[in-house]
Amino acid sequence: MLNLDSMFYPKSIALVGASPDEKKLGSIVLKNIIDSGFNGEIFPLNLTATSILGLDTYKDYEDLPSIPDLALIAIPAEFVLDVLEKIIQKGTKNVVIFSAGFKEAGSEGLALEQKLSEIIKKNSTDDATKINVLGPNCLGFVNNLFPLNVTFSQPVNKKGNLRFISQSGAIASSVFDWAEYNEVGFSEFITLGNKTDLNENNILQYFYENDISSLTQEEGSSGLVPIGMYLESIIDGKEFINISKKISAKNPLFLLKPGKSSESKKAMQSHTGSIAGEDYVLDVALKKAGIIRCDGIEDFFDLAKVFAWEKIPKGKNIAIISNAGGPAVLSSDFVAEEGLQLVRFDDETRNELETHLPRAASILNPVDVLGDALAERYESAIKTLIVDDDVHSLLIILTPQVMTQIEKTAEMIGRLSFEYGKPIICSFMGGSHIAKGEKVLNKFKIPSFRYPERAVKAIAKMCQWGEYRNAINTNSETQTLESESDFFEQKQNQGSDSAEIISSILTTDRKNLDSFEANQILEAYGINTPSTKKCESIDNAKSFVQENNFPVVLKISSPQMLHKSDEGGVIAGIDNNEKLDESFDRLKKIIDGMGDSSINAIQIQKQVTKGLELIIGSKKDLVFGNVLMFGAGGVLANLIEDRNLGLIPLNKVEVITLIKNSKVNKLIEGYRGEKGFESEKLVDLILKFQKMINSNPEISEADINPVILNDDGIWAVDGKMILI
Amino acid sequence: MLNLDSMFYPKSIALVGASPDEKKLGSIVLKNIIDSGFNGEIFPLNLTATSILGLDTYKDYEDLPSIPDLALIAIPAEFVLDVLEKIIQKGTKNVVIFSAGFKEAGSEGLALEQKLSEIIKKNSTDDATKINVLGPNCLGFVNNLFPLNVTFSQPVNKKGNLRFISQSGAIASSVFDWAEYNEVGFSEFITLGNKTDLNENNILQYFYENDISSLTQEEGSSGLVPIGMYLESIIDGKEFINISKKISAKNPLFLLKPGKSSESKKAMQSHTGSIAGEDYVLDVALKKAGIIRCDGIEDFFDLAKVFAWEKIPKGKNIAIISNAGGPAVLSSDFVAEEGLQLVRFDDETRNELETHLPRAASILNPVDVLGDALAERYESAIKTLIVDDDVHSLLIILTPQVMTQIEKTAEMIGRLSFEYGKPIICSFMGGSHIAKGEKVLNKFKIPSFRYPERAVKAIAKMCQWGEYRNAINTNSETQTLESESDFFEQKQNQGSDSAEIISSILTTDRKNLDSFEANQILEAYGINTPSTKKCESIDNAKSFVQENNFPVVLKISSPQMLHKSDEGGVIAGIDNNEKLDESFDRLKKIIDGMGDSSINAIQIQKQVTKGLELIIGSKKDLVFGNVLMFGAGGVLANLIEDRNLGLIPLNKVEVITLIKNSKVNKLIEGYRGEKGFESEKLVDLILKFQKMINSNPEISEADINPVILNDDGIWAVDGKMILI
Repeated sequence: MLNLDSMFYPKSIALVGASPDEKKLGSIVLKNIIDSGFNGEIFPLNLTATSILGLDTYKDYEDLPSIPDLALIAIPAEFVLDVLEKIIQKGTKNVVIFSAGFKEAGSEGLALEQKLSEIIKKNSTDDATKINVLGPNCLGFVNNLFPLNVTFSQPVNKKGNLRFISQSGAIASSVFDWAEYNEVGFSEFITLGNKTDLNENNILQYFYENDISSLTQEEGSSGLVPIGMYLESIIDGKEFINISKKISAKNPLFLLKPGKSSESKKAMQSHTGSIAGEDYVLDVALKKAGIIRCDGIEDFFDLAKVFAWEKIPKGKNIAIISNAGGPAVLSSDFVAEEGLQLVRFDDETRNELETHLPRAASILNPVDVLGDALAERYESAIKTLIVDDDVHSLLIILTPQVMTQIEKTAEMIGRLSFEYGKPIICSFMGGSHIAKGEKVLNKFKIPSFRYPERAVKAIAKMCQWGEYRNAINTNSETQTLESESDFFEQKQNQGSDSAEIISSILTTDRKNLDSFEANQILEAYGINTPSTKKCESIDNAKSFVQENNFPVVLKISSPQMLHKSDEGGVIAGIDNNEKLDESFDRLKKIIDGMGDSSINAIQIQKQVTKGLELIIGSKKDLVFGNVLMFGAGGVLANLIEDRNLGLIPLNKVEVITLIKNSKVNKLIEGYRGEKGFESEKLVDLILKFQKMINSNPEISEADINPVILNDDGIWAVDGKMILI
Repeated sequence: MLNLDSMFYPKSIALVGASPDEKKLGSIVLKNIIDSGFNGEIFPLNLTATSILGLDTYKDYEDLPSIPDLALIAIPAEFVLDVLEKIIQKGTKNVVIFSAGFKEAGSEGLALEQKLSEIIKKNSTDDATKINVLGPNCLGFVNNLFPLNVTFSQPVNKKGNLRFISQSGAIASSVFDWAEYNEVGFSEFITLGNKTDLNENNILQYFYENDISSLTQEEGSSGLVPIGMYLESIIDGKEFINISKKISAKNPLFLLKPGKSSESKKAMQSHTGSIAGEDYVLDVALKKAGIIRCDGIEDFFDLAKVFAWEKIPKGKNIAIISNAGGPAVLSSDFVAEEGLQLVRFDDETRNELETHLPRAASILNPVDVLGDALAERYESAIKTLIVDDDVHSLLIILTPQVMTQIEKTAEMIGRLSFEYGKPIICSFMGGSHIAKGEKVLNKFKIPSFRYPERAVKAIAKMCQWGEYRNAINTNSETQTLESESDFFEQKQNQGSDSAEIISSILTTDRKNLDSFEANQILEAYGINTPSTKKCESIDNAKSFVQENNFPVVLKISSPQMLHKSDEGGVIAGIDNNEKLDESFDRLKKIIDGMGDSSINAIQIQKQVTKGLELIIGSKKDLVFGNVLMFGAGGVLANLIEDRNLGLIPLNKVEVITLIKNSKVNKLIEGYRGEKGFESEKLVDLILKFQKMINSNPEISEADINPVILNDDGIWAVDGKMILI
């Protein structure tokens, strides 16, 4: 386990590349350290200057009078490796490398970064010797709890309950500027840069182990320690999910990650019916880990504010109070769109509102306190709703009309929020005038958004995390863990034949299994495939028919032909001898035309009676491992875009949920008079399929398309597999 | 044609309800008129005060020394009608009623408003006597071109090229506050209130006739006169489309209208397979009229700014310049999501960028000028791209890093924008620091958004309008008009039988046509229905089979049974005499059980061979008239949500496009080896169906479900109609 305490709470700091030129990075960092109030020892290193900012300088790292807890490197990339070796020799264990010019700067930089990585690994033989390096190409970090600002960015020092991890330094500078404007405080802001050594998982682990909730809660804040992340890549998906899960059970994690739309686009354009783009997988993984995904930068900022300042609503019931009908109606739209609910007030609440509001006011939800509402009228409406247990959160909309008391209303809302602690989000709509109200709201830690749709969206995402937290803190997590271990124990009992088939193929340079081989593996895991046989001649085919009867299907069994149907390699519906002869001849000719002597067989298969066509597949994701895909098969697959993903292994409950959430589930259950199918068989097949994937790490991709579910059972009609 | 010139450019104004109390509406309005610089005559009316704000007052409207062009009413609702009569008697033709307490305030108010409407109508017998009333329950209007502020809102007087129409006064006050903060000017802002008399169509017509483009264009503005609308209802959909079309051909119209999501929700929940919620219809109508719809208030504000300030991009090619990689990558995502394209720079442009930028910079799109970019480096990148004809718009992203010259960069962007005139949108990301840059950008009329996703979205919507304008200004409009008249001429030649059937039903109190009747009407318009006959007895059925052969379908022909299949009222696949006997008996029993003597017939129908099941329907929309719906039928209908709407009449090209854009089109065209169908037959059937709907205004709803398209032809298997 890493110990990063002396990284983020160092007693002494050395700065290699300290500079007397106040425009240089090495000067700005030094000034930031001093200005942030750090009162440990500081050792600036510079080859020529004898003193910088009133501090004595050193020429060489080995000359330092003591071993600094933390070394900062702010010199050109080509000198970094030598200096790092010296730092390590001296005994410093924590290093921040600001320098750019590594893997982000082309092949030379990449080579340099590989050497950097080697130096770190070579010297980190165990927990005791472990060298911790942040960067290179990073902005450093801010720890407002210490306090210490080790960045070359605009100083920020407002303490608060937010924590940030950002792969990009530029995003950090925007967050700092945003935080200043919005008077939002944070505790730690750690930038990762190129992640040669320390990555998001290390920092998350550090955050998880260092509970700062008691240090950061001020009056009016959420009582949580939310973590905002901006990541361009995820190093180890499984570890990321594990540590995130532990954190999300107590505190919200929200993530901004590029690649969303372009990936989705790619996914939508792919017509293979196979696993969708990686970004869909990320969504599944985030859901599992309870991480709230941001749709954009605005979302990221909005969530930072609400998670920092407001308590999580107990549920989805929202009440809206507005001094204008239009924005209230618009907001109701967004409430529906975001899956929240407008509370239906009970008689008591309605009577209470009626007593305090003018006759023309609307006492239904949204409550319209009318355009001439002063702070007092807003107050009586809020006081009525804030004690109503059916109301889980309040949205207060204010338009700056001629009578409107902008600041007084804000002040009153702030007071009531402190007093009752129920989540309140505001939307003061406008610009110059309402800005004064926003300032007041900021003081009381009430998030206000200029557009009510932003407020509604933020509440919805708070509820999304709230639901995750509730679920994980009841019993679903333990259930999952149990079933998972259950799953892994059973997996060894089956599929012993599969290893043989796979290893025999691995000795060749083939990667695609032919459908005959794929079916053998499926059968080894107890998945039914229709009776089948390879036929060297028409006589083999005829004896197969004698055993299995018509109708049958003839297929070319070749790993070269992955899309058999499209290439005329499948002939179905053969129900008499004449057709059988004719079809066999036709396939024979195709094979001869392919000129590949290795294809020496035609496969005959019992045709499965009609039923519902489904698809089940899996694909190894580089970050998150094996991903399961389930959906409608056949012609439907391409029409209804029914791709439902899960990370393998899913337990039985998760498999059932996956099926229930699919579009094709309507047909499985049967509707509008059509009869349905037994979904137990399907659940069973998916569990077996998962075991097969898990037990055979050499399988890179697999799919069964179609799986036919009918009254007789469930059949894997056509399997495909690709090895790594 | 209305003449609203003396409403919006009055030479004299009377204010009924002028008040000496400066907190009262009647005082604020008066002060606003004076402060706005109005230099015509003003007549304040008040029962007790002799002078208000230095102006002599009058007690009675008839005492006024001359006939005011415009009368303003700011007194309680119950006194409004009397005063209005006096105003009309005096000869004033233009009235603004601020007073609330009309239809928005319950049944008494509604009655009052109806009387108000009667007074207006009674006195408006022709164009010459027409009384124009704005409101009641409105905020009045601002005309910065005059200048004149006839509202009780915060004064605003920055002149600009934007025009606004708002049903809500509160939205107006938010727009005013937003405009002040963002330094955005506008020409007219007209609030509609309850729209007893003047509505959006009147104001749009007025805007259309009053070309103000030469009066409002300043250096740096878009050269357009954009119109922003906030509407909660649309009075006359067809007129709205007509006038909007004329405007959109020259200037952008953008609309914010509530009801979007809640309506969509309702629509999604409806499982009738029938026409979707009204909001979908609105989308179709807006598309036809070239109106850009806003997804929320933020969108509304964003579009106001870009349409006012930036020229419309020539196409979808966007180039991004950023001093930070993260936001640039995120923006690329949004570019894809919004359907824009990142330009691929040619060699010349890449070389030019390479010459001016540091080696570590990215010269691909997005261009990364690196975190230490000063204004100069931004400038050389912009100068290179702004002259590249492949670049249609530029997005400049700036994060406030330590070296960043925020204001200087903004100033430089402004200068280049003036010089080259190519659309530039900025995203300066952050809060306090970047605000200074925004101020500079505002001066140069460069829109800047704190989140790049907003900028990308705004550019996409500019392009959306640009495409509409280009299309309408080439030839598509004339084509449409020709085909429409064509359409109406032909419609009389067919369907003479239908009038008879319908009128005979209208004499009863039935509204639902039975399928026998519906089929007769369909046939009258040349739509094929399978041979059918009503059978009093099993003998009738048998003689039908002798003529038409098996297989046949038996149905209960009853207007009481709209969902025959669900109620066991349809038996298909009858292919022998035994089944025929049995089925006939079964239906007979159901009919007997229904105990309705009027049901005396079972319908026998030739069963249509298998084919593609489609649905075609229509429904009268209260605002936009008859709406056509086309999509997948049968089981697919409910799985793939394939509802494609158009406003009747669609010309042939529009019908083809409707089909092409449907999801089921994949199956019509045939794919993955399956063969397709002849879509001409489908187009023809839809045109005939439209004629039927258009010629029979008594039909409120109609649908054919399924329409079966197969190799033999196209068949309306089951028609339903509901009369008004």
